[in-house]
Amino acid sequence: MRITLPDGSERHYDSPLTPAQIAADIGAGLAKAAIGAKVDGQRCDLNHMIDRDANVSILTRPRTNKQGRSKGDPDPDALYLLRHSCAHVMAEAIQCLWPDALLAYGPPLENGFYYDLALDTPISSNDFPRIEAEMKRIVEEDRPFTRYDLPPDEGMEKLDKEANKYKLDNARRALDGGAATLSWYVTGDRAKPQAVEHWEDLCMGPHVPSTGYIGAFKVMSIATSHWHGDIKSDRFHRVYGAAFFTQADLDARLEQLEQSRQRDHRVVGQKLGLFAIDEQVGQGLILWKPKGAIIRDELQKFIMGEQIRRGYFQVFTPHIAKIDLYKTSGHYPYYQESQYPPMVSREQIRLLADENCSCAELSNRMDEGAIDGYLLKPMNCPHHISIYRSDKHSYRDLPVRLAEFGTVYRWEQSGELTGMTRVRGFTQDDAHLFCTAEQVKDEVRSTVELSRFVLNTFGFDDMEVYLSIRDPQTPEKYVGDPSVWDTAERELQEVLDDSSLAYTTQPGEANFYGPKIDFNVKDVIGRKWQLGTVQLDYNLPQRFDLTYVGADNRAHRPVIIHRTPFGSMERFVGMLIEHYNGAFPLWLSPEQVRVLTISDKFSTYGHKVLDALKNADLRASIDTGNERVNAKIKVAQDQKIPYMLVVGGKDEAAGAVSVRQRTRGDLGAMPIEAFVDQAENEIKTRGKDVVTP
Amino acid sequence: MRITLPDGSERHYDSPLTPAQIAADIGAGLAKAAIGAKVDGQRCDLNHMIDRDANVSILTRPRTNKQGRSKGDPDPDALYLLRHSCAHVMAEAIQCLWPDALLAYGPPLENGFYYDLALDTPISSNDFPRIEAEMKRIVEEDRPFTRYDLPPDEGMEKLDKEANKYKLDNARRALDGGAATLSWYVTGDRAKPQAVEHWEDLCMGPHVPSTGYIGAFKVMSIATSHWHGDIKSDRFHRVYGAAFFTQADLDARLEQLEQSRQRDHRVVGQKLGLFAIDEQVGQGLILWKPKGAIIRDELQKFIMGEQIRRGYFQVFTPHIAKIDLYKTSGHYPYYQESQYPPMVSREQIRLLADENCSCAELSNRMDEGAIDGYLLKPMNCPHHISIYRSDKHSYRDLPVRLAEFGTVYRWEQSGELTGMTRVRGFTQDDAHLFCTAEQVKDEVRSTVELSRFVLNTFGFDDMEVYLSIRDPQTPEKYVGDPSVWDTAERELQEVLDDSSLAYTTQPGEANFYGPKIDFNVKDVIGRKWQLGTVQLDYNLPQRFDLTYVGADNRAHRPVIIHRTPFGSMERFVGMLIEHYNGAFPLWLSPEQVRVLTISDKFSTYGHKVLDALKNADLRASIDTGNERVNAKIKVAQDQKIPYMLVVGGKDEAAGAVSVRQRTRGDLGAMPIEAFVDQAENEIKTRGKDVVTP
Repeated sequence: MRITLPDGSERHYDSPLTPAQIAADIGAGLAKAAIGAKVDGQRCDLNHMIDRDANVSILTRPRTNKQGRSKGDPDPDALYLLRHSCAHVMAEAIQCLWPDALLAYGPPLENGFYYDLALDTPISSNDFPRIEAEMKRIVEEDRPFTRYDLPPDEGMEKLDKEANKYKLDNARRALDGGAATLSWYVTGDRAKPQAVEHWEDLCMGPHVPSTGYIGAFKVMSIATSHWHGDIKSDRFHRVYGAAFFTQADLDARLEQLEQSRQRDHRVVGQKLGLFAIDEQVGQGLILWKPKGAIIRDELQKFIMGEQIRRGYFQVFTPHIAKIDLYKTSGHYPYYQESQYPPMVSREQIRLLADENCSCAELSNRMDEGAIDGYLLKPMNCPHHISIYRSDKHSYRDLPVRLAEFGTVYRWEQSGELTGMTRVRGFTQDDAHLFCTAEQVKDEVRSTVELSRFVLNTFGFDDMEVYLSIRDPQTPEKYVGDPSVWDTAERELQEVLDDSSLAYTTQPGEANFYGPKIDFNVKDVIGRKWQLGTVQLDYNLPQRFDLTYVGADNRAHRPVIIHRTPFGSMERFVGMLIEHYNGAFPLWLSPEQVRVLTISDKFSTYGHKVLDALKNADLRASIDTGNERVNAKIKVAQDQKIPYMLVVGGKDEAAGAVSVRQRTRGDLGAMPIEAFVDQAENEIKTRGKDVVTP
Repeated sequence: MRITLPDGSERHYDSPLTPAQIAADIGAGLAKAAIGAKVDGQRCDLNHMIDRDANVSILTRPRTNKQGRSKGDPDPDALYLLRHSCAHVMAEAIQCLWPDALLAYGPPLENGFYYDLALDTPISSNDFPRIEAEMKRIVEEDRPFTRYDLPPDEGMEKLDKEANKYKLDNARRALDGGAATLSWYVTGDRAKPQAVEHWEDLCMGPHVPSTGYIGAFKVMSIATSHWHGDIKSDRFHRVYGAAFFTQADLDARLEQLEQSRQRDHRVVGQKLGLFAIDEQVGQGLILWKPKGAIIRDELQKFIMGEQIRRGYFQVFTPHIAKIDLYKTSGHYPYYQESQYPPMVSREQIRLLADENCSCAELSNRMDEGAIDGYLLKPMNCPHHISIYRSDKHSYRDLPVRLAEFGTVYRWEQSGELTGMTRVRGFTQDDAHLFCTAEQVKDEVRSTVELSRFVLNTFGFDDMEVYLSIRDPQTPEKYVGDPSVWDTAERELQEVLDDSSLAYTTQPGEANFYGPKIDFNVKDVIGRKWQLGTVQLDYNLPQRFDLTYVGADNRAHRPVIIHRTPFGSMERFVGMLIEHYNGAFPLWLSPEQVRVLTISDKFSTYGHKVLDALKNADLRASIDTGNERVNAKIKVAQDQKIPYMLVVGGKDEAAGAVSVRQRTRGDLGAMPIEAFVDQAENEIKTRGKDVVTP
């Protein structure tokens, strides 16, 4: 039996064995740190029996630093096991307190876990300490998680007796999904089913070896939920929790959440007057108020400037097109549920009315795409393709790089809408590169470089990258020539290897129309944000029959690269508001400088200073109010204005200003011109050195 | 009887008299030049009998210069009489050649006239010389136009006998419209109805005194038309003609038409790769290709820069809103025929389907506005209002000036669409100023100044302005306080008086919601273009219940000023293409400079020059092909590139370039840096001195 480890080394064993045994075979340190394993990509328990050749990696507790914080990001698979285990502990604790509570479903989440329980008694956050106390007891008892499996018949019989319709439903779904057995996890000793220290749950696992592995946890919040999200079905209490390997990690997460709350772009953006949402205009539709529009405009100028320098051309296209265009592209009728409804042409409705058609029939025809009219554009590609095909192209003209800040509209469910970060109308920093297969590698490299350059400007220094390639098992799912895919996947990988970026390869995550690269960044408080993407496309060039004339004087098919490195201006600015906590760097600040007079007497001089600032195209204002200067400073600080220029008698005599920087405080007096020079330089360099916490 | 003349002077007469007699009383020169009159604003014949107090102005032939051209623009009312008269002459000429031709309708137009005739025989442009020969004869016969009136009964009886159903219909419409009599115009002597030189037409007039007054004419074109535009009704030949007081005026018009044809932005814009229209995207929807997008972007930067300097703020708003917003604004359902159809929400269609509603019922509910969903925005005002009302405002914050290059969508009939100048999607250079009544005058003045400043930049030095005010007869048609209107109208007039702009006051042409100012310009070949508008609005502030807190601490209603001085970017750029004939000034040129190598040997040096140009942010390219330099120059000239830099041995040795300007030709050799400086300066000043014919 051959066991292949993550470093590629192999170990040979004569008989079945568990990951725990493999870990012990490798070394005592690993055995001690081990909490579970991945066998051929599947997470499993440490005592899962391996009986054939397999790729095995051991999941471990993270190493910690002196403060007890995990070094680097803990392995998400290890956290998955931990959180799933803690969900069991919490459910047991709740059943200790409310024995009537009926278990429904309790999965791990990216940052924690929840458990849905049916219970008539209301639970509130006041109950959290009691729940946590029970959990603490269970963790301290360090009870093992013990799995047992039953054949389907026997398992269903057991569940029938227990009369929990949710678990019955879960079991049925598992069996329908192909499970060979039903499995339970006991928290405690399976041999002592009557013991207080025995609790069990129908569960596919896996779990950490015992409750003692749960280093730190917290009950976070409670909400109402429904069986499989169907609001017509039974109501549950959904109790959310957090779990980490160490208390320091949990503390860091709680601190991050508190910071997130304070930085919430919906609150900060509203307070600073950056954007508004008006129910009468529509949910998920952003009105960029003057100050927000300045930020967006500066970003757009910066990004488009960099693109033009790299050989892109800007275009402008309409926000609608005939339905026919989206039938050719394949976006209609298949994706219509994620689009705004079509504008059914008046002729079409008249025709249907003449035929005595019903609205039910209209709805059917819409579903079938058998209607005439217009669609709000859900993406820019078909429009850019229309520009490409308006000319004949030679291989000499390629790549053609068409860029647009194109506003697109998609129908998100209203429950999913969040401020600027989940919206229904958004402006992509979009571009489509029409190129030859030979040009793909250079184009992708330059896109990745552009993304890094721009993201570094905002202090996002570690970019996480995902390379999505085909599932080698199902080649039939992908359009285009497999040999072209082979080359493209290899080339994308080479670009990433050369880039020194950390990246994760995701087999099976490619689009059916081509491989892709996705970008994530971490903001200043450590949260990850999914941004944009670079996608190869072999499909649309074919559907639209795009061509270019090659050196051989024959028609060839170009490749399209879709790329929107930041996703959308709405989301990006929403994220920046939180990243900077509203205190934008000078070049992006809606108001860059405010002149504060220390009394009425200096109003004339203050306006002279203001004029000098405006002549230098700085966004500046003046506060000549009667308040004391400290009160004026407080107002300006609250409004996150980077520079305050206090002017009084000494300043006027010297033609100077007393400069106060929002975070660094008093910088002393300097001549007006010197301040203007300094500010202009900070804007020009986009102030990468200035940190705004 | 008191006759008031245009200069305000009065003349008194004891008995009824005609304008001809009044003209003779004023002077022999006027009597000789007179061709008709306006009596209390109504055009009429020179021998129309005036029998009560009236304002009278005499319409005259224009004065001419040595070349026979009219001095200044001929009076449009005088041209109206001339062209209407020429329509009669042409109809008579056609009936001479095709006696079966049945007369339908023949009005004057802004630049000519047409006559619709029913006739089975086809007429083609080959027939125009024959028609013109007959017309020449009729004009040379100098026959008088003689009017006679019949009472309705007698008139209808006469028409019944003549059995022309179109004239019968015209007569019925005239009587329904309140006409007391039916009138005919005889070309010739009414007393000799059997003479060859006698032709007559049912007609409300007026006409010039005789056919000899028609100085120059031409049959221009022929088209198919239908009775009152209804394509299901009878087909006509519509024959178009042109008529002027002098041959030189006609020649100038024909030259202008020929130039218009050559400059047609659809042809030039296509050839230069500025824009495309794709039937699959939709008619009337402009795809701005890279080169056109550069022009638009430069214009937008220029206009927005000037606006921000004047205290405007940029905003961005979505391209859709809920139907509800347009019910509040009053734009729906009343204007829905000029809008894209609504996006009827899926819930709405499901509800209607559940109620077994028919599509006819859906259509009815759409007409009534009783549906739920979204509309593509036909204008930006409701969105800007949403931004205004997202904050509380004090009188100290006003005016709030919100500007956006906002793309709006309106449903123009497909027959009316023309390239970029008549479209369905267009980007307004829009702004809404929310101000107090006291601020209106200053805001309008500054808008007029901005428009003049920007238009002068393009060489549009004479701007024509129309001031539209209330119809004093129907005060009930207008919303808002009459005393506020009085002030506003007076203030708008004062702004225009102070501006030294020529303007025309149009009573009765105000919107129901406020007075307005419209701008026209004349392009380089003398054509007039209607551009944008400044409109006061007392209606929307009321409908949306907008307020600001005044100095008295009470809520007041702001006024909204809608202003879009250039109308739309699409139309404006379409017009500029024709104005410049594609040869844009340097700052707007998509490609500003091309380097032309005189042979292979200078390719390296050529690229060095190119780099220097690009480093200075000039839009430049290089032509290193094997053709002779003269061939390369021809290509660059055809592509309307302002500067060509020819580089050869002498240039390389001297670090110089041989500069060729597209219209001025060879400018000699100069150091690269000197050329860059010169070009940068020309861009900065927007090259007002450089004329591009």
